[in-house]
Amino acid sequence: MLKAAIVGASGYTGAELIRLLLAHPKVEITALYARRAAGSSIGEVFPQLAPQLSMTIEAFDPDHVAANAEVAFCALPHGQSARAVAALYERGLKVVDLSADYRLRSAASYAEWYGSEKEPEHPHPELIGEAAYGLPELHRGSIRVAKITASPGCYPTSAILALSPLVRAGLISTEGIVVDAKSGVTGAGRSPGQATHFPEAGEGVRAYKVGGLHRHTAEIEQELGAIAGNELKVTFTPHLLPMSRGILCCAYARPSRDDVDTAALRKAMNDAYGDEPFVRVMPEGKLPDTAHVRGSNRAQVTALRDRRSGQVIAISAIDNLVKGASGQAIQALNLMQGWDETLGLMGGAIFP
Amino acid sequence: MLKAAIVGASGYTGAELIRLLLAHPKVEITALYARRAAGSSIGEVFPQLAPQLSMTIEAFDPDHVAANAEVAFCALPHGQSARAVAALYERGLKVVDLSADYRLRSAASYAEWYGSEKEPEHPHPELIGEAAYGLPELHRGSIRVAKITASPGCYPTSAILALSPLVRAGLISTEGIVVDAKSGVTGAGRSPGQATHFPEAGEGVRAYKVGGLHRHTAEIEQELGAIAGNELKVTFTPHLLPMSRGILCCAYARPSRDDVDTAALRKAMNDAYGDEPFVRVMPEGKLPDTAHVRGSNRAQVTALRDRRSGQVIAISAIDNLVKGASGQAIQALNLMQGWDETLGLMGGAIFP
Amino acid sequence: MLKAAIVGASGYTGAELIRLLLAHPKVEITALYARRAAGSSIGEVFPQLAPQLSMTIEAFDPDHVAANAEVAFCALPHGQSARAVAALYERGLKVVDLSADYRLRSAASYAEWYGSEKEPEHPHPELIGEAAYGLPELHRGSIRVAKITASPGCYPTSAILALSPLVRAGLISTEGIVVDAKSGVTGAGRSPGQATHFPEAGEGVRAYKVGGLHRHTAEIEQELGAIAGNELKVTFTPHLLPMSRGILCCAYARPSRDDVDTAALRKAMNDAYGDEPFVRVMPEGKLPDTAHVRGSNRAQVTALRDRRSGQVIAISAIDNLVKGASGQAIQALNLMQGWDETLGLMGGAIFP
Amino acid sequence: MLKAAIVGASGYTGAELIRLLLAHPKVEITALYARRAAGSSIGEVFPQLAPQLSMTIEAFDPDHVAANAEVAFCALPHGQSARAVAALYERGLKVVDLSADYRLRSAASYAEWYGSEKEPEHPHPELIGEAAYGLPELHRGSIRVAKITASPGCYPTSAILALSPLVRAGLISTEGIVVDAKSGVTGAGRSPGQATHFPEAGEGVRAYKVGGLHRHTAEIEQELGAIAGNELKVTFTPHLLPMSRGILCCAYARPSRDDVDTAALRKAMNDAYGDEPFVRVMPEGKLPDTAHVRGSNRAQVTALRDRRSGQVIAISAIDNLVKGASGQAIQALNLMQGWDETLGLMGGAIFP
Repeated sequence: MLKAAIVGASGYTGAELIRLLLAHPKVEITALYARRAAGSSIGEVFPQLAPQLSMTIEAFDPDHVAANAEVAFCALPHGQSARAVAALYERGLKVVDLSADYRLRSAASYAEWYGSEKEPEHPHPELIGEAAYGLPELHRGSIRVAKITASPGCYPTSAILALSPLVRAGLISTEGIVVDAKSGVTGAGRSPGQATHFPEAGEGVRAYKVGGLHRHTAEIEQELGAIAGNELKVTFTPHLLPMSRGILCCAYARPSRDDVDTAALRKAMNDAYGDEPFVRVMPEGKLPDTAHVRGSNRAQVTALRDRRSGQVIAISAIDNLVKGASGQAIQALNLMQGWDETLGLMGGAIFP
Repeated sequence: MLKAAIVGASGYTGAELIRLLLAHPKVEITALYARRAAGSSIGEVFPQLAPQLSMTIEAFDPDHVAANAEVAFCALPHGQSARAVAALYERGLKVVDLSADYRLRSAASYAEWYGSEKEPEHPHPELIGEAAYGLPELHRGSIRVAKITASPGCYPTSAILALSPLVRAGLISTEGIVVDAKSGVTGAGRSPGQATHFPEAGEGVRAYKVGGLHRHTAEIEQELGAIAGNELKVTFTPHLLPMSRGILCCAYARPSRDDVDTAALRKAMNDAYGDEPFVRVMPEGKLPDTAHVRGSNRAQVTALRDRRSGQVIAISAIDNLVKGASGQAIQALNLMQGWDETLGLMGGAIFP
Repeated sequence: MLKAAIVGASGYTGAELIRLLLAHPKVEITALYARRAAGSSIGEVFPQLAPQLSMTIEAFDPDHVAANAEVAFCALPHGQSARAVAALYERGLKVVDLSADYRLRSAASYAEWYGSEKEPEHPHPELIGEAAYGLPELHRGSIRVAKITASPGCYPTSAILALSPLVRAGLISTEGIVVDAKSGVTGAGRSPGQATHFPEAGEGVRAYKVGGLHRHTAEIEQELGAIAGNELKVTFTPHLLPMSRGILCCAYARPSRDDVDTAALRKAMNDAYGDEPFVRVMPEGKLPDTAHVRGSNRAQVTALRDRRSGQVIAISAIDNLVKGASGQAIQALNLMQGWDETLGLMGGAIFP
Repeated sequence: MLKAAIVGASGYTGAELIRLLLAHPKVEITALYARRAAGSSIGEVFPQLAPQLSMTIEAFDPDHVAANAEVAFCALPHGQSARAVAALYERGLKVVDLSADYRLRSAASYAEWYGSEKEPEHPHPELIGEAAYGLPELHRGSIRVAKITASPGCYPTSAILALSPLVRAGLISTEGIVVDAKSGVTGAGRSPGQATHFPEAGEGVRAYKVGGLHRHTAEIEQELGAIAGNELKVTFTPHLLPMSRGILCCAYARPSRDDVDTAALRKAMNDAYGDEPFVRVMPEGKLPDTAHVRGSNRAQVTALRDRRSGQVIAISAIDNLVKGASGQAIQALNLMQGWDETLGLMGGAIFP
């Protein structure tokens, strides 16, 4: 069994890593780390885990991790994660980083989106080149040989899965792409706040960070731009919905040619995902639904052309905590270990 | 007191008409009609109304309506409504029709979107010209003199409120407009079905009738096209969310000129709505939220330009049962009666 | 118009007071107070109120209140409220206090339930005798002449409305009463916390403060005991449900005699509430539902005897923020002013 | 691999059986049956299952089942199930029946609770004695040797797990037990109806079948009575909550002696469940929460004495579709096969 540590075990992605790894046939959780929860048992922090794992959370210390684990998942806030990853990498561990710190290939872009007054630049720019972008459907090869994998953001996962086959096949214009994404509240993390207080988030829907403000924009543009072979800008609008899990992403683009029809779009989707274990191209006439992927590492996608306006519409549904975070991180680890990519991840969705 | 009948009292828009009219200072409900619920008291059909109104629902009969009321609200399914409206109009009643039957100004368009094998054409094309499109913010004048007002659909209300000021001001291109709208489940009516069964609709989000299939597309195009002075096509994607009330509409368009900035968009919004009693242009940096208009006839709108992509984004929030249906219908009646448009409609939103 | 101030305007009961008072024909809101929100406009704190009220929240100062208002609603945390009420009372204002501070008639009981290390005793025991317990259905007479009304807790309102007619009629034993109450999350207030974070409170149900720990127990026992003419103890179990508003209270008791049947229980309910404007005894066979009182000052109640076990079951449904808080406070004010008790409170429930 | 058929595959318990059995190391699903869905693929009926199982649903025919499977799960409506079970038993299959048909040991009791005008008596009374009541925590021995196991109802599972250790230990009086249970909407099945329509079931709570009307009462009384050694009657009140999954059961009883304290109650719970793989006695001061067992076969239980009233309170939380139905059915099958009872059932809860 591979010894794995989870750094940042007290958040939702930490709990989801634990849930999934407990069912993994080749991985054993050997240590848990978190700052404020250090000293507590995991069952105190997450009562649902108490029957399965009795382990005390420790304060993060890279030497302690190195003494106890061969690989680590980092689920810390950005900035913090960059340093933790560097310390672990230095000690020879393979790391899957669920933060944003190693997702952007350009240090300048990182500084633009994540730089703060206190820390304007990436703390470890020398490692950016070492990290693979952990979307297996696009970067399987580089993940296999990576020592650091930067697990993609939840919104970028949904947007890139919906759009990348169409960009690659040259079926849509890379100008004017709109990504309208709807997320459950776990996407905002476990720290309480007014916007995520039940009475404020319930029975209502709202957009947020509208107009080019959400940091995930950079990832979407980076990945689609790399496929297109040119820089591109997307209009990305995230929404907060009264549900806990799930992202539905609805993307709009102009077809690159008049003769692009739904059949061509579906062919591109099927070409891209026909052999993918976790991505399902919906049968024609059926549409993705986040309720049907809840709790699983699966994605549903579809694409079609609007019969009247001619616009191309691509839709995807994922569970933001699984395919959008912890499940995808394990998928990456499987690749980094040279294992079957699906190990521990074939559990079905929980519906309803 | 004006005597008002409600035809189609057993659905959600019927109940909402009753709730609002019971607080109206100049209207008295004198009769209720419904097909299957005929013979029941309204309190049996809607227990929340029992303390306020004890009235038996009757089977619809236009002579009975004419004997008991001066005006009627029709909240019947389309097709049925067209005939009921005609029968009431013939008997001299003013009618506010909440169905789709008199919303489209072209009989051909009606046939295209609403025609069925059994009834391919509009049953009363001669009355289409008599009906005003009941969006007061656009058609106040014609509603004032109308005998029939066709109350707009819920989605069109949200989309037209968001986009019409920008179209009128010539700030956006009328080509390539995308309308991504998110609705609560009451939009699907009161008849149970699998998609609206609690466990299927809860904790998940999905688009439906994607690709130019939803009938409300026709209304949106008609109204925006009339303002633009040219035919236009929109890409309209409705979504079903795990909440009961509310529509959030996010519309995307290309600016008509490079120099269109957020200030210009906000000026157009303020010019259009500065004196409107029910439409609030959000302060800069604040965004519409359906939770903040729930139960009220108010709309929240905003517009801005994406700082990176340059795309124009217009957003609106309404309660689909009030501003999107019954409240707006009463607003129209107030106008038809020559009254202050806000009578009975100034109640605040219920939050949370 | 009576000038009214709201002290503690930034919480949910504050917002609900504003919503209701804006529709009150004889009351005008003249000042709003809150600690942390001082300096903000009410529309910034509660966007849903922005179109109806543009008023700046001030820091509480009793002289300022006295200069601006004739009556005050206090919706502060307990302890703080006791002092604010005393200061306002001293300045000659009538006060309706929504905190727990003047609900318990015994200073000893207050000390037992609300005393803290820092403040072990009631800060103004001399005023306890001045305060009426503001449940109009029980204390209409004393409220009418009170200068201070202590508005009941949300759970006690639901429990006392369900049980008091049966205790008064001597139909149930006062030993062994069980009160199992289910509340929406607004009952926990507006301050975010882990238990009320959307993903933690959603899609699940749990009891809390089980076993005689919840402070509202004291109120329930005080009021039922006063009717019974003897001290009594109830087993009170509150629950947190995944909804924002509403309390459903299910109370269980042994019949006092074998021949107590559902008819006798219903008669007691009808005798108690037949003339009450806000309490509806459900028709036989129909059961209370919080969805049917949402947003209104109404309560639904019923009582029946279990056909097999012989146990008496009494059930009530209220909106915790209206009949359980702000609506009931206004009902009390109406009485204190000698007005029709229903002024401003006859608005219907919002369903769905 | 053991060949298993699912009869009644189109309901929620059918889907949950499939989800769980797909992860079972010793069972293979070889056939699916349903009436209305016959001819459809399972992926059409339950899109979340499409990626894992492509199998066509067939019309039920006992010979077809016998030709294709060694064991069968029956998840049909009561009455129908009795006959299907009999036909399969006759053909030599082991059957786990998720309907109510073989739960009651007395044909008279069955007739009383389930008899209809059309079918007043149990159709196969001769088989009642063959069936084990499938609650492993109580009936492990008889399940192991049974050919038919009647899987318990969801409410009885929650009530019996909470109360049986206290009854067995003689700590509570068997007179006057109250069971107040709160269920998610999946408990009502997959057929849409008005009470389970999203807008009616959402944002509200209500009791139903109050007063000794719910059929599950019989099971609770049978099982607790058998332990007590005397007939007993419980007051059982079910509630419908705005969530999809989960039952929280709060049971109240008088202690049998004055000296019964929380420690004694906890000891009885620990004695009963200390070695149980699926039942967790909560640490003192922690309470069960349905959100923490969602999707898993686990139960959380606790018991304590109210510090003021002296009443005993026992609480349990389960997922109604897993421990309350399909998971428990598989647990029974594991026993019937002589396997480790936990096979395929150790998956963790999905939270949030």
